Amino acid sequence: MAVRKIAESTVRRLSLYLRFLEEFELQGASTVSSEALASRGGTTSAQVRKDLSFFGSFGKRGLGYQVGALKTQLREILGLGRRYRVVVVGAGKIGSALVQYGGFRARGFDLVAIYDKDPKKIGRQWDGLTVRDAALLDKELTEHQADIGAVVTPAEAAQGVADRLVASGITAILNFAPVQLQVPEHVTVKTVNLVLELEALSYVLANR
Amino acid sequence: MAVRKIAESTVRRLSLYLRFLEEFELQGASTVSSEALASRGGTTSAQVRKDLSFFGSFGKRGLGYQVGALKTQLREILGLGRRYRVVVVGAGKIGSALVQYGGFRARGFDLVAIYDKDPKKIGRQWDGLTVRDAALLDKELTEHQADIGAVVTPAEAAQGVADRLVASGITAILNFAPVQLQVPEHVTVKTVNLVLELEALSYVLANR
Repeated sequence: MAVRKIAESTVRRLSLYLRFLEEFELQGASTVSSEALASRGGTTSAQVRKDLSFFGSFGKRGLGYQVGALKTQLREILGLGRRYRVVVVGAGKIGSALVQYGGFRARGFDLVAIYDKDPKKIGRQWDGLTVRDAALLDKELTEHQADIGAVVTPAEAAQGVADRLVASGITAILNFAPVQLQVPEHVTVKTVNLVLELEALSYVLANR
Repeated sequence: MAVRKIAESTVRRLSLYLRFLEEFELQGASTVSSEALASRGGTTSAQVRKDLSFFGSFGKRGLGYQVGALKTQLREILGLGRRYRVVVVGAGKIGSALVQYGGFRARGFDLVAIYDKDPKKIGRQWDGLTVRDAALLDKELTEHQADIGAVVTPAEAAQGVADRLVASGITAILNFAPVQLQVPEHVTVKTVNLVLELEALSYVLANR
């Protein structure tokens, strides 16, 4: 399906609608109203109808949306109809938590390799994966392409790792290091960092 | 110190500069150039100078910034000169990880209470904290005000918990649930959700 470029905030709402539909389906519901979707997405039912009509999905007045069909369609729009190969660089605490987090696989993201440069970590078994020598990263990515690279290194190593991932053809990076990664325009970076979010809150609290 | 309202992206860069200064200080460095700060913040040295001059901090040409003094000043701007009381609502896996995460306390964020409504979880000891009955949340927040509420509940409970936090006077929320929380304008919400970031990446990969 060809999809026009849509705003990041819309993609985020589609993810939230999908979460809701999955839970709703588990409860045995077969239809859902735009109002119910709106409450999950923190938006209005008019916005829900607009978000979904954009992709050719129309609820029936008084009947709402078919849960199963809309779920399938949202999964397709979000690119979840296929599986993604994820390599993790950095076998510290967060890297370990990532590898052990079962939710990845359930959502279609397969962790295929984890790398570290610390000889004490290389060779360790983590949830079926062996920590590999980071020196092999570039060569192995060239042989077995991955879709997403997760950067879970200390801050000072993160940009170098990102550069290597990009040079090896990775175009999507999930960054956990407290660094703003510099990447070419064709590469997308998403950042997950609890401390940055906490400090954004403390800034607001302190400067009110 | 009175500070004008600054953009969220600037606050984020200040956090990144601060991380860098902390590491740099550990290495024994006493001065830092705007170029070095720029590399960490994913920006230019001109932007660094602009960010910092905004707060009255000026590096000396050829000498750069004093690491210790700039660190102290950034901590003050980010509101890190004081401690924050954080209550956690939801004692599931992520709530547990949060409570055990040592980085909170080191950065000035004290977890003072954790709540859950599940009788099987209430009373459990977690890293020195006893899981409390969520029914007591409102009353206890009125008696002992907290600064930040962390919402770590299942999605369907998150908005209700947020409403109760806001009604109890909380104005800063850290949200881990896959829901866009609706809050009054005076309340700030920051969201941390790995699955939403992953799906934003899969959307981009699928729709290129």
